[in-house]
Amino acid sequence: MFKKILIANRGEIAVRIIRACREMDILSVAICSEADKDALHAQLADETVCIGPAAAKDSYLDMERVIGAAMAVGADAIHPGFGFLSENSKFVRMCEKCNISFIGPSADIIDKMGDKSAARKTMMEADVPVVPGTKDAVYEALEGRKIADEMGYPVMIKASAGGGGKGMRICEASEEFEHTFETAKREAENAFGDGTMYIEKYIRDPRHIEFQILADKYGNVIHLGERDCSIQRRHQKLIEESPSPAINKELREKMGAIAVKAAKAAGYYSAGTIEFLKDQDGNFYFIEMNTRIQVEHPVTEWVTGIDLIREQIRIAAGRHLTYQQKDIHIAGHAIEVRVNAEDTEHDFRPSPGVVTNVHFPGGKGVRIDSALFTGYQIPPFYDSMVAKLIVYDKNRKLALRKLKNALGELVLEGIKTNIDYQYDIINHQDFIEGNVDTGFIERFQKEREEEKESQGEASC
Amino acid sequence: MFKKILIANRGEIAVRIIRACREMDILSVAICSEADKDALHAQLADETVCIGPAAAKDSYLDMERVIGAAMAVGADAIHPGFGFLSENSKFVRMCEKCNISFIGPSADIIDKMGDKSAARKTMMEADVPVVPGTKDAVYEALEGRKIADEMGYPVMIKASAGGGGKGMRICEASEEFEHTFETAKREAENAFGDGTMYIEKYIRDPRHIEFQILADKYGNVIHLGERDCSIQRRHQKLIEESPSPAINKELREKMGAIAVKAAKAAGYYSAGTIEFLKDQDGNFYFIEMNTRIQVEHPVTEWVTGIDLIREQIRIAAGRHLTYQQKDIHIAGHAIEVRVNAEDTEHDFRPSPGVVTNVHFPGGKGVRIDSALFTGYQIPPFYDSMVAKLIVYDKNRKLALRKLKNALGELVLEGIKTNIDYQYDIINHQDFIEGNVDTGFIERFQKEREEEKESQGEASC
Repeated sequence: MFKKILIANRGEIAVRIIRACREMDILSVAICSEADKDALHAQLADETVCIGPAAAKDSYLDMERVIGAAMAVGADAIHPGFGFLSENSKFVRMCEKCNISFIGPSADIIDKMGDKSAARKTMMEADVPVVPGTKDAVYEALEGRKIADEMGYPVMIKASAGGGGKGMRICEASEEFEHTFETAKREAENAFGDGTMYIEKYIRDPRHIEFQILADKYGNVIHLGERDCSIQRRHQKLIEESPSPAINKELREKMGAIAVKAAKAAGYYSAGTIEFLKDQDGNFYFIEMNTRIQVEHPVTEWVTGIDLIREQIRIAAGRHLTYQQKDIHIAGHAIEVRVNAEDTEHDFRPSPGVVTNVHFPGGKGVRIDSALFTGYQIPPFYDSMVAKLIVYDKNRKLALRKLKNALGELVLEGIKTNIDYQYDIINHQDFIEGNVDTGFIERFQKEREEEKESQGEASC
Repeated sequence: MFKKILIANRGEIAVRIIRACREMDILSVAICSEADKDALHAQLADETVCIGPAAAKDSYLDMERVIGAAMAVGADAIHPGFGFLSENSKFVRMCEKCNISFIGPSADIIDKMGDKSAARKTMMEADVPVVPGTKDAVYEALEGRKIADEMGYPVMIKASAGGGGKGMRICEASEEFEHTFETAKREAENAFGDGTMYIEKYIRDPRHIEFQILADKYGNVIHLGERDCSIQRRHQKLIEESPSPAINKELREKMGAIAVKAAKAAGYYSAGTIEFLKDQDGNFYFIEMNTRIQVEHPVTEWVTGIDLIREQIRIAAGRHLTYQQKDIHIAGHAIEVRVNAEDTEHDFRPSPGVVTNVHFPGGKGVRIDSALFTGYQIPPFYDSMVAKLIVYDKNRKLALRKLKNALGELVLEGIKTNIDYQYDIINHQDFIEGNVDTGFIERFQKEREEEKESQGEASC
């Protein structure tokens, strides 16, 4: 087993990994930027190395400094956490060269899964369903209609050069196709000077369902059930839960088996996530694989009882999985809420500053992952997520009640946070009913703004 | 189900019960003394009634004020927590008269189990093993020796009028009996003017093992495994864990069945605890039954997954148990450490005052039950326990590691606490090995004092 792990990250995930190291009797080394000298992760680790200025590119993202620190302290492994260098294959290769174990998959796997079209190809070859779409460009409306008819409606007509929604149209039925195609094409030509089009199956209001994978270096792969991460704002997840209210045992087994197949097709090892979009008819499509630990891993930890960081470390050290698929039992229900230091009333802009008071909820079924403390100055340089509140109970209804109460007890003063915003989400009827999709936040945000406007009018 | 529960308690257990009420959609009413107006339980409840001055006898122990508050707010039930009125049968009868449900057993059961000799009699009649001893006074050494020979050595010779260790002798062998008896008797006569003696089996270095019971009003009784509470200082528990390192599956089943039998013999309902002393030969003896929720209930909650406060409330409302014995599975290992505001260097005297900084550990497998917050003024009027840290992991070794780290992360400033003292206990080799008994703390304390003295000498 490793003797000393350098944690190439900050914030709550660095604290999470330090704790795991302690529990495994492994020395932990924190790195910090000059802005993070008083940060909790820097205080808690067995050793701390300040590796550079505040800007992430000069510290947490500076591969040479990170590796240099690891070599200076004699770390035999690096845990990258998430974000920063966690999916950077160049960094992984540097670790290998310096004879330092990277706690994650190989550089080649990261490359293969990081290139979205290569990943899509790998999955198609392995019979993992992907969002159906044309491989080649489509120039003619009639040709496109034939393809769309085969695919089934609705379809998305997309400009190859597209961006910002320009040259993009949803087509609901065959008889509308030609008109829609021509409109989109014209728009693309006007906007980008390029009328090359693609056609893709349009997944209406999908749920974001991801499967947690654990795989060792010897080809043993298991899944730990799914997480439902449909509550997203601009692809940033806000609330995650496991199990998903939209997945029954049968579908879990089916999707789980495909997730395992996907991980095997990638030759994957370590903890990883297979992300799917699930439509309302029960179809699901691979979208990407995340080759790292994820922010939302605690919900899976709670419903399975398995410590994912420990497992990552064990796998990286060459250990075999000690669990088989039959040992994995999903019990109860866990929900995670991300607490961000941001101003939800002003376009969610970050709200760094001094936290003058922190009070976390506690009691049965409440977990806090955070690097906050009273008096901590949140620096303006990094991600605005400052804490995660995770609750667990026997079923979703009870977990949701617990979440409501716990979030109500949470106090963070001195900065603006999304606590009230999250509170409103979890009290929204659609969320209570588990009836959400990736479009929920957009609708929710619109409702809020309309309500605010009507209140403004009423008070005039 | 109840609509509104008044919580006749304060501190962390009041907060614990408020949370349970919220999760069950029951309104919660806190009571507080004038000293507790800013206390967390008073802040968190749906309603709060200040019922009297700081002194407990004028507030939390004043039955008429408590019941008066319950009637004033229209509470249909009272949860007593532990301590205060929780085992006061007169209070239970008052509740009954006022048509308020008491969340606990009946007044008669409390009376029967509260009278130690009546409880002992009930248990003997039900074939529950009790510490063997003479029912009647013994006046003559020869008569006593005969009894002791039958009982087996060692025995305790005790003055009927005894106290403070006077007139009390341990006798190790038959040939020593007469001399020891006469010595104890003389001492008793001198000290109390009464030479009436009793003989009891002496349990050398026992472990304190208690079984958690759940019973409904319809005769259904189950046990939820044991807690080992051998770490006690002057009968105050300091650390509790479940399962006990000294109990294997076979013994658990055996003792559990007897605990269930004991609860049935008492006609018990609600959550309750059967306390045993266990000697080093595997014998165990009923010592008493606690007819309330206990401080250490969270360790049982964690290894069984069952919410004991919810169950208490359900049972009081006349619901049937939803668990059978076969549904109860003990999984993993939980340890609780009590955090007291006290000065361990000065005879553990209470250390009230303003808590200038609170920082709790978090992460996977860490539970905090507390009513503390930064700026809270711990009043000098009540119990010195201010928080409980509970950890959970797959086995004792991992749980202990987690506990060590979590306790190391815990910060409480502004007052003196027993955190360092507890840290030293959990790092003591005997505790690490699970090799402790109720005499541990006395020996530990002596070791500490000797060490301090030798350090004092060394520095002279």
